[in-house]
Amino acid sequence: MLGRLYGIGVGPGDSGLITQKAIDIINKIDVIVAPITKMGKESKAFNIAKPYLKADVETVELEFPMIDLEKEKETLNAKWKENATKIAELLKQGKNLAFLTLGDPMVYSTYSYLFPYLEEVNIKPITIPGITSFCASAAELGVPIVQGNETFCVLTQITSLEEFDKYKELFENIVIMKPFSSRETINAAIEKYNLHDRVYAISNCGSENQEISRGFVKEDISYFTIILIKFGN
Amino acid sequence: MLGRLYGIGVGPGDSGLITQKAIDIINKIDVIVAPITKMGKESKAFNIAKPYLKADVETVELEFPMIDLEKEKETLNAKWKENATKIAELLKQGKNLAFLTLGDPMVYSTYSYLFPYLEEVNIKPITIPGITSFCASAAELGVPIVQGNETFCVLTQITSLEEFDKYKELFENIVIMKPFSSRETINAAIEKYNLHDRVYAISNCGSENQEISRGFVKEDISYFTIILIKFGN
Repeated sequence: MLGRLYGIGVGPGDSGLITQKAIDIINKIDVIVAPITKMGKESKAFNIAKPYLKADVETVELEFPMIDLEKEKETLNAKWKENATKIAELLKQGKNLAFLTLGDPMVYSTYSYLFPYLEEVNIKPITIPGITSFCASAAELGVPIVQGNETFCVLTQITSLEEFDKYKELFENIVIMKPFSSRETINAAIEKYNLHDRVYAISNCGSENQEISRGFVKEDISYFTIILIKFGN
Repeated sequence: MLGRLYGIGVGPGDSGLITQKAIDIINKIDVIVAPITKMGKESKAFNIAKPYLKADVETVELEFPMIDLEKEKETLNAKWKENATKIAELLKQGKNLAFLTLGDPMVYSTYSYLFPYLEEVNIKPITIPGITSFCASAAELGVPIVQGNETFCVLTQITSLEEFDKYKELFENIVIMKPFSSRETINAAIEKYNLHDRVYAISNCGSENQEISRGFVKEDISYFTIILIKFGN
């Protein structure tokens, strides 16, 4: 009989932020599938889940390279197909698999790239949601993301003040993930709209080197930074 | 000594979707604070957390009426202040409190309305993030909310096609919570842009009466419905 594939959100970094359901599954699973960005690199998701794993659990690492999706679509497609095929082979051996993903499996996860290939071979994964990095960040900041009838959006970049204005017109709250490429636009917007008190940044949320700041975005912010802008329109 | 106040996200409904950290806290807390919409009504958040509570834990229910924030701002402000005062009194008795909230405490939660009043009396809560209803819904649907460099937004209403067009121009993915008031606009947009295959609805996610559909939004959808629109721009 075909095994079961679980896609498990392990949350943003703190092992305490895994759900009970995820723990129950990874505790009794046959194989843990951990995504890595490069062979030889550690899997962040695996390290988060480690305290809950059986000592002798079989582990399989799958490479999801961090390359540009638009520029190297073919390379990535081939890689995703290869990974889906490996997963299908393990399932055919009757093994139950847990694919670990950082944060939530449906929000910017590599796991979701496997879906079309798994569908081709008729595999329907069961997905266990996880804590997103922006929710964990807001909790650490002590600042609500959205209240009442307000709206919010999640972006990975803002390239110009004109673009910023469009978002500002429609939203009371903006979350920006990986904001380093949007730094200049964000700082220009802070200046233009006097948002110094309304822009929060948190880097490496929940880890030892967590850093919180307000106002202008610094030049050397870490890749794992979340920015929260509250217009209070 | 002043007690500690924890704001705990218990997730959208399934008791398995509480985090390990939340369980550890509510398991050793002195007082559980549960929000209710009306005296005599059950607290959803309390029922979700129930399996993890000490048998003899002290419970306090606080009323957060479901009335219009814009129309009855004063009534609500008075209620929030009253609730914050009750919490402050318990903390002054040296008790540790866990305030339970559905989903995530920073995403549309009544808990966050207490912040300004707690700040006045110098109380800094510790917030534990939770699984949002839209992440749990996407997991049940088996559909990613956002991938790669895409963006998404979370709305509580869309009142016209013109407004819809603005969101469509800026986003590849839209999540609509409590969509019953936006039903006609969403259906008009489905017709106009031929989105029949790109609109997913899920009601009462994770509960016995969960319902999933695609395309036009039905007239009798439940209050607890999430709509996911994937433009694939």
